[in-house]
Amino acid sequence: MLGRGWVRLFCRAVRSQRSCRLACGLVCVLAAGMPLLQAGEPLASWHDGASKEAILSFVSAVTQEGSETFVPVQERLAVFDNDGTLWPECPLPFELAFTLDEVRRLAAEDPDLAAEPLVQAAIEGDLKRLVAGEQHAGLVKVLTLTHAGMTSDEFARRVEAWLAKARHPRFGVPYEQLTYRPMQEVLALLREKQFKVAIVSGGGVDFMRQFAERVYGVEPEWVLGSSADVAFEIRDGRPEFFKKPSGFFVNDKVGKSVRIYQQLGRRPIACFGNSDGDQSMMEYTTIGNHYRSLGVLVRHTDETREYDYDKQPLVSGRLVSALEAASEHGWTVVDMQDDWKTFFGPQP
Amino acid sequence: MLGRGWVRLFCRAVRSQRSCRLACGLVCVLAAGMPLLQAGEPLASWHDGASKEAILSFVSAVTQEGSETFVPVQERLAVFDNDGTLWPECPLPFELAFTLDEVRRLAAEDPDLAAEPLVQAAIEGDLKRLVAGEQHAGLVKVLTLTHAGMTSDEFARRVEAWLAKARHPRFGVPYEQLTYRPMQEVLALLREKQFKVAIVSGGGVDFMRQFAERVYGVEPEWVLGSSADVAFEIRDGRPEFFKKPSGFFVNDKVGKSVRIYQQLGRRPIACFGNSDGDQSMMEYTTIGNHYRSLGVLVRHTDETREYDYDKQPLVSGRLVSALEAASEHGWTVVDMQDDWKTFFGPQP
Repeated sequence: MLGRGWVRLFCRAVRSQRSCRLACGLVCVLAAGMPLLQAGEPLASWHDGASKEAILSFVSAVTQEGSETFVPVQERLAVFDNDGTLWPECPLPFELAFTLDEVRRLAAEDPDLAAEPLVQAAIEGDLKRLVAGEQHAGLVKVLTLTHAGMTSDEFARRVEAWLAKARHPRFGVPYEQLTYRPMQEVLALLREKQFKVAIVSGGGVDFMRQFAERVYGVEPEWVLGSSADVAFEIRDGRPEFFKKPSGFFVNDKVGKSVRIYQQLGRRPIACFGNSDGDQSMMEYTTIGNHYRSLGVLVRHTDETREYDYDKQPLVSGRLVSALEAASEHGWTVVDMQDDWKTFFGPQP
Repeated sequence: MLGRGWVRLFCRAVRSQRSCRLACGLVCVLAAGMPLLQAGEPLASWHDGASKEAILSFVSAVTQEGSETFVPVQERLAVFDNDGTLWPECPLPFELAFTLDEVRRLAAEDPDLAAEPLVQAAIEGDLKRLVAGEQHAGLVKVLTLTHAGMTSDEFARRVEAWLAKARHPRFGVPYEQLTYRPMQEVLALLREKQFKVAIVSGGGVDFMRQFAERVYGVEPEWVLGSSADVAFEIRDGRPEFFKKPSGFFVNDKVGKSVRIYQQLGRRPIACFGNSDGDQSMMEYTTIGNHYRSLGVLVRHTDETREYDYDKQPLVSGRLVSALEAASEHGWTVVDMQDDWKTFFGPQP
């Protein structure tokens, strides 16, 4: 059962990889090379246009005291998908890159493990083989190897070590440097306007909490993600949580709405996503909300500066139904190529 | 399966009821009758003594900039049990009183339902019969009747209606008026010192979120409790969550530590509880914490003003092992009779 949860999540990742075209140049506009932004100018990395205007006018409308659309501070909850919305998900979702690198690291220390055929497939990055078969035994194997069977502290150390060392295969920089500057500006704007900002991601919550505060300024309490059971024990005078390969909750699609309800207990008024996996929380946020609400879908349309996998998805389901629903529900569709002056950069 | 979770929770409730002696007078020192407290005086409803001093010195130590024991604002997380810690749990935990009243209400509208023997037992308040048998079929029955099979909005309306109408059998006032004033003062003090304050209760999270903000000033995001599955659907243009009788998580004992880890992702530095069900989160908070931490157990020792069910518990397990562990771990043990000038009152 648990395997199935993980598999659903990572099969989506594999599909997304197939549809990500590893295109063109190394135009990597990172923080160091960015033009200095005028202090205080909101959404400075956004070109003027309908997308920027939609975000600014929403924020203005719900925060202006006395206006009919004013929303009390405590009700200002905004939710953000992570992979593909706040940072890239190509050529692999970053957590899947971590997973494969971890298998390689573990296999290097253990010849018996390395000799196992499915582990070999992971070492070679043969995703097709990992997801083969009804039960996707390879994926279950590598996820169990890398995400369970250790304490949460040990897992955290492994994630930190990987983040410090790993480099993105195309951009050649640490993964943490690849957050979208335009989205960081949205986070900053909302925070300035006293919004609560939550990340609601299909990624594992234990993985994301290692960097979300440092990278996005989002504290652990506001990071919602996929999860599995943990067992709590006091060992050698230390409270520890043991990560178990059971009780998996896939924080994707309808699961995102459910988790927002269960964990935050409050309906968002703004939602940012980039795929059909975000459609449910977009609907929860916007449909019939008695507050003015905002739904934003970001489309990956820029082969030169990032990736273009929305226009011609090789596998259906990437961003299809959510895009169709956008006009019906009045969601803002961001075209990364047209709307963003720059791609990557840290928190303002 | 689901039933078993609920049953564990409510059997504890039933045991607690048996051990609560419905004693003595109607000395009901409510807000109206309280002496005016000097503005700004922290913990004004606490007698001077070791308990008050322990709380004040902890708060001072972790919030004084430059001190060795200073704790950064974001790490100041305090967790509170609810039933028996922030308000009474006698003669019944309030949610169980709601449950029985709801069965009575539903049965009054449905003669067929009323005729069922287990429903009859609930109507008569015959808890022994409800928990009889290995499977505790009666309790499962009434909990399923009252906590599942409706939307979250409908459940919220029922809780609100009950809170507005129901009166505590001994004190004769709405349940919401029975929060402990001394504990409200602790909440206020911690909030003033920029603590994050979370309620971590065995009670149902959907039940508690109806009043936690109004009564304690604790927003829904910071209420952690027992829960069950919900299904998300858009019906008639409305997003709705349907409460299901499955996937029960019992937020008690080790479950409290697990839920704090899973949901908040941060270790508390202060924990307030009153029973063995809180022992795990007390341990998680205090054992080997590299920050200075505070564990507080409140003991129900005042038959005259509230209840006395700790000294002579009729059923073991109430407050036994946590009390034994208190001296080992340096937890503060509050004696309600000796430490509290007054019992009940709202947020300062």
